[in-house]
Amino acid sequence: MDFRAVPDVIVRRLAIYLRCLQERSQDDDDFISSVQLSQLAGVTAAQVRKDLANFGQLGKQGVGYEVIRLRSKLASLLKADQVVSVAVIGVGELGTALTRYLRRYPYMELAHSFEVVALFDLDPQKQGREVEGLLIEDPESMAKVVQERHVRIGVITVPRIAAQAAAEAALRAGITAFLNFAPVRLELPPDTRVLNTDVLLELHQLAFSL
Amino acid sequence: MDFRAVPDVIVRRLAIYLRCLQERSQDDDDFISSVQLSQLAGVTAAQVRKDLANFGQLGKQGVGYEVIRLRSKLASLLKADQVVSVAVIGVGELGTALTRYLRRYPYMELAHSFEVVALFDLDPQKQGREVEGLLIEDPESMAKVVQERHVRIGVITVPRIAAQAAAEAALRAGITAFLNFAPVRLELPPDTRVLNTDVLLELHQLAFSL
Repeated sequence: MDFRAVPDVIVRRLAIYLRCLQERSQDDDDFISSVQLSQLAGVTAAQVRKDLANFGQLGKQGVGYEVIRLRSKLASLLKADQVVSVAVIGVGELGTALTRYLRRYPYMELAHSFEVVALFDLDPQKQGREVEGLLIEDPESMAKVVQERHVRIGVITVPRIAAQAAAEAALRAGITAFLNFAPVRLELPPDTRVLNTDVLLELHQLAFSL
Repeated sequence: MDFRAVPDVIVRRLAIYLRCLQERSQDDDDFISSVQLSQLAGVTAAQVRKDLANFGQLGKQGVGYEVIRLRSKLASLLKADQVVSVAVIGVGELGTALTRYLRRYPYMELAHSFEVVALFDLDPQKQGREVEGLLIEDPESMAKVVQERHVRIGVITVPRIAAQAAAEAALRAGITAFLNFAPVRLELPPDTRVLNTDVLLELHQLAFSL
């Protein structure tokens, strides 16, 4: 199976399943049924079985999924068994809040999956300052930093007007996956991966149903 | 059409269409074709036509959509033609950043659609302080505040461990729609509307494809 072809919605549920397994005490349960996992995750048992069937024979009929094995399989698929280096581009309110959140986040049992290893801001007054012990640097040095610190994901937290240029600069520096918080659609090459997190769109979605 | 039954993914695109129309200069163009709108929004023209057809006969064959009319229709559907009052529950890093963002946000041409009108935090040391001129209050007063200020949406930015209790308190206070930033699945009655914004899930989605 080409993993790039797996729909986002399935990947997102895999991450939810992993979280459920990580949060669950595992002292006395070696197996978890699709029904149990579905209740933790808030989906149907059929959905759990269908999602996981995409990645091989992970469960046993009538017994369920071996927790340790399923956890490690999901962690491997989602790169949660390694540390993925992240750069935050734009260190305003939101960039600062996200950096603190990610650098302090005590969630993962297995490992901190994401590590913010670089901060960039165009503002010379911010450059040289630190957030959570990490230096804010000039985007001019991005290519060097990305290579040296193996940055894989760029988090775009610049103002809307600056987002396209920031993403292009990051792309030139070698970053190909972006989490974009700016309320604008980034125009990037098709082999670039962009996820948009857009608070205003989400509020509109909620408002629609009011 | 029961608007509650419209899938989230369509509502999200409606919000994107509205944004594209708002960003577009409208001096010289009275009409926009589905092809033009699709290019701005980054979807197919067929998708645009199909999405909009859910809400009546909005376009004219061979001419396209009357921009002003389509804008006002979308704004009405998405409540972007009114101000929806929002409470931020949990005024840590993220709550503060979001409050500043929403209170300063200069995006909407038509109107600021969302107004943060109340901030709550359990921490007595935060209560009485202000963010962007807005007082942080004791969640004890939530029912009164929600009623007086017509709060419709609660933004949950408390730590994960506190999220369920915060949402339940907000629900008792009369809020039925939530944007949840805590990395946990909230257990709320079925007629409650919850959208989850989960940075870690999104990073995992990106990492999956690396």
